[in-house]
Amino acid sequence: MSERAIGVFDSGVGGLTVLKEIIRQLPEEDIVYLGDTARVPYGTKSPQTVVRYALEAAAFLVRHRVKMIVVACNTASSVALPALAERFSLPVIGVIEPGARKAAAETCIGRVGVIGTEGTVKSAAYTAAIHRFNPDIEVFSRPCPLFVPLAEEGWADHPVARLTAEEYLSPLKSHEIDALVLGCTHYPLLKNTIRTVVGESVRLIDSAEETARMVAATLKSSGLQRTEPSGKRAFFVTDVPTRFEKVGGAFLGSILQGVEQVELDWI
Amino acid sequence: MSERAIGVFDSGVGGLTVLKEIIRQLPEEDIVYLGDTARVPYGTKSPQTVVRYALEAAAFLVRHRVKMIVVACNTASSVALPALAERFSLPVIGVIEPGARKAAAETCIGRVGVIGTEGTVKSAAYTAAIHRFNPDIEVFSRPCPLFVPLAEEGWADHPVARLTAEEYLSPLKSHEIDALVLGCTHYPLLKNTIRTVVGESVRLIDSAEETARMVAATLKSSGLQRTEPSGKRAFFVTDVPTRFEKVGGAFLGSILQGVEQVELDWI
Repeated sequence: MSERAIGVFDSGVGGLTVLKEIIRQLPEEDIVYLGDTARVPYGTKSPQTVVRYALEAAAFLVRHRVKMIVVACNTASSVALPALAERFSLPVIGVIEPGARKAAAETCIGRVGVIGTEGTVKSAAYTAAIHRFNPDIEVFSRPCPLFVPLAEEGWADHPVARLTAEEYLSPLKSHEIDALVLGCTHYPLLKNTIRTVVGESVRLIDSAEETARMVAATLKSSGLQRTEPSGKRAFFVTDVPTRFEKVGGAFLGSILQGVEQVELDWI
Repeated sequence: MSERAIGVFDSGVGGLTVLKEIIRQLPEEDIVYLGDTARVPYGTKSPQTVVRYALEAAAFLVRHRVKMIVVACNTASSVALPALAERFSLPVIGVIEPGARKAAAETCIGRVGVIGTEGTVKSAAYTAAIHRFNPDIEVFSRPCPLFVPLAEEGWADHPVARLTAEEYLSPLKSHEIDALVLGCTHYPLLKNTIRTVVGESVRLIDSAEETARMVAATLKSSGLQRTEPSGKRAFFVTDVPTRFEKVGGAFLGSILQGVEQVELDWI
């Protein structure tokens, strides 16, 4: 049993879609969330740089005495988990493994699409993870760099998003996939648009729900659940909070206030 | 006279459009270029954070013994010039003043549009600079956050860029401007698309040419020109160079090679 908080980090607001689901499934737990908004995005940056940023973010959460670290960012999960696991002795959970497990379970014909940032797609982390569950599944990947700025612009259902989705997703459609992993925490905001383009026959896999389930299971198996319900949430960012509070509300599905700016130590 | 190099910095590849024009006008000068690719973009970040990054970038150039600093980034120019001028004793040239001067000169009816990042538009630096040249000019501004990722995706002439430009620029068109400042170093790549949307009657103001002219004039007036032609160029970035070299070629208009990764000291 542990009354300590769960630590969650992302490059910015995207991880709030994961946090929302953790809060839904584990409302009694305290949360410390860090968005590295001074250096967002991670998706276009190199694995080396993302690993360094992830270590710095995790070190911040550890200084806040969290009992577990959730990497609520696909790019960081796809390249930094080994480094995080080596450096820190507490449980570290990423979003790739849960999403891959769900995709492997939900495809009927063994053909899965994966969309994400350049960093996530280049790492091939989803392909590797899906193959750990079932090596016979064919995986087709495609980076969709414009989806993040479209979601942040509030244009998720705009004709521009529709046209962009058609351009990005038509190669995947031609591979006749029946499951599509939304491999970036921003993408659930574009679900309606993506659904319209890929059609009803393709299942959309959003890691958030499955990740929250893995967080709950790990707390239980490690004996780290709270004894007393609490539900406190603290939000930290590395740039001034104004934009995070404004944009983040749509991701969290509720108003964001009292966000505090902090500096991360270099590693 | 000074044989030292001109220092140029930007958050990433955008400043290469300015560098290209400096090289065209001053081929005999040596250049040290820094792209802060580990923390790009600056346009969505707060003034405080951008000022800190600009000071760190300038300090790097000063350690390379440059004779002048060119802030080849509209966002940094719009918020960081006073801090840079206070900290460093060498000439510092931004892109706002030259662009504003050209806009003030080119509008016939005194109605100017300005497009840029969120940071640049919020700072109102162009409005202030244009009014220093002519307080009677009416200035209409609009942030265009998707233009940067569109240019970096190579979609400058794609139907998505066209539709985005129509959405962003139609409010400016309705103000009946006759000059439009491309207030972000990425935007010259979208010139054709922007031209199609705003029509032939609106002059498009690109700061690069005017900035290079101001660099040349300042070298002359400060007695800092080279005596012997040289033309060496050194490129540094803060993330691994792969993406910068790949994307940057289109911005510089020639192949980019031998780019070196460096770390900036925190200020």
